[in-house]
Amino acid sequence: MSSSSAAPAAKPPMRDALVAAAFRLFLDRGYEQTTVDDIVALAGVGRRSFFRYFPSKEDVVFPDHERCLADMTAFLAASDEEHEPVGRVCDAARLVLRMYAENPTFSVQRYRLTKKVPGLRAYELSVVWRYERALADYLRGRFAGRPDGTLRADVIAAAVVAAHNNALRSWLRSGGEGDASVTVDRALGYVQSAFGRPSVVAPEGQRPEDVVVLVSRRGAPLWRVVQELESALGRG
Amino acid sequence: MSSSSAAPAAKPPMRDALVAAAFRLFLDRGYEQTTVDDIVALAGVGRRSFFRYFPSKEDVVFPDHERCLADMTAFLAASDEEHEPVGRVCDAARLVLRMYAENPTFSVQRYRLTKKVPGLRAYELSVVWRYERALADYLRGRFAGRPDGTLRADVIAAAVVAAHNNALRSWLRSGGEGDASVTVDRALGYVQSAFGRPSVVAPEGQRPEDVVVLVSRRGAPLWRVVQELESALGRG
Repeated sequence: MSSSSAAPAAKPPMRDALVAAAFRLFLDRGYEQTTVDDIVALAGVGRRSFFRYFPSKEDVVFPDHERCLADMTAFLAASDEEHEPVGRVCDAARLVLRMYAENPTFSVQRYRLTKKVPGLRAYELSVVWRYERALADYLRGRFAGRPDGTLRADVIAAAVVAAHNNALRSWLRSGGEGDASVTVDRALGYVQSAFGRPSVVAPEGQRPEDVVVLVSRRGAPLWRVVQELESALGRG
Repeated sequence: MSSSSAAPAAKPPMRDALVAAAFRLFLDRGYEQTTVDDIVALAGVGRRSFFRYFPSKEDVVFPDHERCLADMTAFLAASDEEHEPVGRVCDAARLVLRMYAENPTFSVQRYRLTKKVPGLRAYELSVVWRYERALADYLRGRFAGRPDGTLRADVIAAAVVAAHNNALRSWLRSGGEGDASVTVDRALGYVQSAFGRPSVVAPEGQRPEDVVVLVSRRGAPLWRVVQELESALGRG
């Protein structure tokens, strides 16, 4: 990550207390076995306070996604023509990673909880879908007028989300050890190499003005030619 | 599509009658306003018959996905090493298209219904997720031992699903007019060109043995080089 996006908004202490109480109960006695009444009793507040912050019990499991979706939308809206579009949606995806990485213990607990409760997995799928739509909508704007613009936008958005989630899940499975951003950068780099403009640096010891000549039969499969090309350029 | 995959299993008439009754009511009075009791009354059967075929009211909206998921899993399981993996998952995705294209009127009605009912959209997301996992699991097997094998598998599966759905939705939005498979082939071709081995045919009037020479600075961005290459090979 780099640049922009607002600092996390200050969170009201009561909201934090509700999340903490909810997770203590979810981990102790299970998600299904915990009621909103149990949560407010432990947090020492009334039911109305709960519903002021969270529309439902499911929402307390994912307390930061709405803020993160808003951050992502704002980040993409603040883009200009100078931003290479695929790189830009990769940076937008890194906002989600940052939310998880801000609190590894909580993120890992939630990951384990979500895996066990089908209703939470369904909720998570709908959140992931909203992130994917935010990325796709931005790309559709950038690709407007290009042939197959919406197709490219949808496919690249899906690929970015899948790469991000592959890396995020492997970090969560490891118990939140190590630097998640290294894994995510590598995963997003794969998507950029397939669809975007990779940020190419000439390999060590090769001057950038070195010249590569590639000779190919016209009938050769493109994948073979690109493979040769990557290898000739030292990026295989 | 081509090859393999079982013929559709014979559907019990009572099951079809329940689906038909359900859709008549959903379209007449709305999904939320229709109960299972209404459906069985119109179909002239008992509640137990309904639940023999469908676990819930949502399931009657998507009566063929379980069969299609089973077909897809069987199709992928019947693959061998000769199948190019990306092309194989594209063919697997075409099984879903075929299910929709078998009954355009029904598919278009369902599409319009699903767009209006948030609960059905959530259901659909979970179905799409299961298709995506089936494709990803197959690719993970094929890419086992390759660096970043699970990453590649997850990203390609997501890209295939996104491309398929982009094309499917544009066909559904058009009211199910025309040949959906043309749109889907084009969309999947885009994914294959990004990740797989495209089935290249030399453009008309060019003999396959024509030779292309490409000269590039080593420091040139790969995307630029590939763009030049595509254009030189007549595939831009």
